[in-house]
Amino acid sequence: MTSLQHFQTLFSSKYYCIRNPNEQNLSIKVNGISRLPSSLIVTSMRKVLKTSSYIARATMATKVAYVNETLPSARQNIPTKKQLVDPVRQGVIIEGGVGYRQTVVIRSYEVGADKTATLESILNLLQETALNHVWVSGLLGDGFGATHGMVRNKLIWVVTRMQVQMDQYPIWGEVMEVETWVGASGKNGMRRDWLIRSQATGLVYARATSTWVMMNQETRRLSKMPEEVRAEISPWFIDKKAIQENNNTPETIKKLENNARYMKHNLKPKRSDLDMNQHVNNVKYVKWMLETIPEVFLERHQLSSITLEYRRECGSSDTVQSLSEPDDKDGMFMERTEEESCIKICRENSLPVEVLQGKSIKFTLSYTHLLQITGLSKSQEIVRGRTTWLRKITTFPIPYLTSHNVQRIML
Amino acid sequence: MTSLQHFQTLFSSKYYCIRNPNEQNLSIKVNGISRLPSSLIVTSMRKVLKTSSYIARATMATKVAYVNETLPSARQNIPTKKQLVDPVRQGVIIEGGVGYRQTVVIRSYEVGADKTATLESILNLLQETALNHVWVSGLLGDGFGATHGMVRNKLIWVVTRMQVQMDQYPIWGEVMEVETWVGASGKNGMRRDWLIRSQATGLVYARATSTWVMMNQETRRLSKMPEEVRAEISPWFIDKKAIQENNNTPETIKKLENNARYMKHNLKPKRSDLDMNQHVNNVKYVKWMLETIPEVFLERHQLSSITLEYRRECGSSDTVQSLSEPDDKDGMFMERTEEESCIKICRENSLPVEVLQGKSIKFTLSYTHLLQITGLSKSQEIVRGRTTWLRKITTFPIPYLTSHNVQRIML
Repeated sequence: MTSLQHFQTLFSSKYYCIRNPNEQNLSIKVNGISRLPSSLIVTSMRKVLKTSSYIARATMATKVAYVNETLPSARQNIPTKKQLVDPVRQGVIIEGGVGYRQTVVIRSYEVGADKTATLESILNLLQETALNHVWVSGLLGDGFGATHGMVRNKLIWVVTRMQVQMDQYPIWGEVMEVETWVGASGKNGMRRDWLIRSQATGLVYARATSTWVMMNQETRRLSKMPEEVRAEISPWFIDKKAIQENNNTPETIKKLENNARYMKHNLKPKRSDLDMNQHVNNVKYVKWMLETIPEVFLERHQLSSITLEYRRECGSSDTVQSLSEPDDKDGMFMERTEEESCIKICRENSLPVEVLQGKSIKFTLSYTHLLQITGLSKSQEIVRGRTTWLRKITTFPIPYLTSHNVQRIML
Repeated sequence: MTSLQHFQTLFSSKYYCIRNPNEQNLSIKVNGISRLPSSLIVTSMRKVLKTSSYIARATMATKVAYVNETLPSARQNIPTKKQLVDPVRQGVIIEGGVGYRQTVVIRSYEVGADKTATLESILNLLQETALNHVWVSGLLGDGFGATHGMVRNKLIWVVTRMQVQMDQYPIWGEVMEVETWVGASGKNGMRRDWLIRSQATGLVYARATSTWVMMNQETRRLSKMPEEVRAEISPWFIDKKAIQENNNTPETIKKLENNARYMKHNLKPKRSDLDMNQHVNNVKYVKWMLETIPEVFLERHQLSSITLEYRRECGSSDTVQSLSEPDDKDGMFMERTEEESCIKICRENSLPVEVLQGKSIKFTLSYTHLLQITGLSKSQEIVRGRTTWLRKITTFPIPYLTSHNVQRIML
């Protein structure tokens, strides 16, 4: 017996009981088959082991863990062939064999204080269903949505554009159906779209579209789509759009200058902001963008659309600046009270104010955003953004609409 | 026709098409039944409506949303009677009709850069499965896990103690089985426990326990358990513990003083940190606690247990201070390299260094934590915490273990 075997034997027999005193013996039944535990963790040894054996001394001052040796592949169980149904993810292949639909329940921690899903949660669900689409396709290699062919070519996916249109926010416990599919985008790109529908009402709450290209993981340069990758993914392409655009080339977002109305400096990625690709995650970008917007605006408005144009990667050691500029130069919508805004709209349009009573009428406003890396000789753009917002006007009781109020607004 | 009806008619007929030009007509089929859309959103009106009608003018400069009027209750569909199975949440009643088990897939955004689930994700899953247990029980009233009887008595749940023991972290895509159940805690409290098990390996990765009492929502004072609430929940109580304690009264965490080694000041809750109860969420507390710990420590260690003792609520306007103090006063574990630590342990215990080659051997270290509200005449404790950590020693190649290295350590 080698020292290593001796070490393992000691740990796997005698001491396992210490951690789980309620375990009757060492065997663990997995699917009815008795096997030796693969995760042996030994604690509280100080109290138990008072002998002078070298193992006992080794653990006197420390806690020793002998970690699970089950291979990650067995724990993940990524399919190697196309699956039509994924019962555990509640996913199913649709659209004649190429699209994917997943049933998702809005969880308690995905909603904010108003019980509706946060934008972050929606973006997370888009990412999750996209990856699960690749997962059931049998194409998923080692990595973050990369196919086997991409892994062989050391390629990863990079998003260049993302647009999300939120018509309505799901609420806690609401069951949603997320549909996603892919299509061609130019010669070397891929488009991925989503629809988020409420199962109970059948209504589409959100629509999203995105454009992806490939990057060499080592050189960090964009790459053409290799033929072997095209052969893998192009059979999945369909020509269907979640968001209809007026023309085929979407408007470019203007670049903000350093005199933007709202700015936040010295933003630094934390360890927890990095995703499996070791990038700052998209959701963090959106958080940084929205953090510049004044609280009073966020309280009174709901985001109704967001467009992101990605320019370059943000690494874990970069220092980031977030700029935002509202279209509404005079801040009219922000400073006026809800009743005042409502009354003003009605007066301007010869509408009787009663039409608004009991209804939620909302007004739009837009922001332009920019995240850039600072501390270099020249700032480098990470992502440009554009958000539109709806003014939330809550139902107000009719007594507020006195002629005195109306008079005051008109002056 | 009233002005309001006129307004609604205009919006619900003519203009809905503008938003969805690909919709053939206005009817939407839900479960095969044709119905008028309840969510009518009108956009891009500026381009279309060039007439001088007052509606047209009202929308010239604004976007008007006429929101979904489907009742939240129809969208949530909270059961009013006990369900033995919840197919959409993948939950099932166990333990002779009183426990709950839910199948959960670890999602891509719930893992960190190392592809293992974050502590935050684990805490979120505990909260989610607890609420879903109440959901399927048929006891869920309006609120955040409160029963019908609690709602009638204006009571909410407040957690007083929480303990999580992480033996292993699930990885991306791993299918987990979360079991949870409740029991009595003293005369007026409730205990809730959890086990998180890997479906593939059958191993328990995490164990957790918590203690809850009731608080009057208005007076914010703790309350006795009313008889009608006891009648609702006590049939669900079982006497089973996820974590065995050496004695029945768990150790109290010592209070840190203002000279703790690591401190962060001026922490302020954001809107997004508030949960459905309008409280700063537990997960945020844990983030604040762990934020004080140096990055270099977090990189090399993995949290293996956390205990939280809650003292008072934190409101959205409070300013918080986070203090942390490691047990290890000389920072021995932090400054030494992995190889050096391994070799030292082996030398001290007369073990050949080869036994560690290819194995992950970890060392423990503990921290004491405190979150308190500052800016008052006297600081007020929110929560005391205690964490234990395992040193991650990654596999290192055998060439590192030269006698030169060993020699250097011994000096």
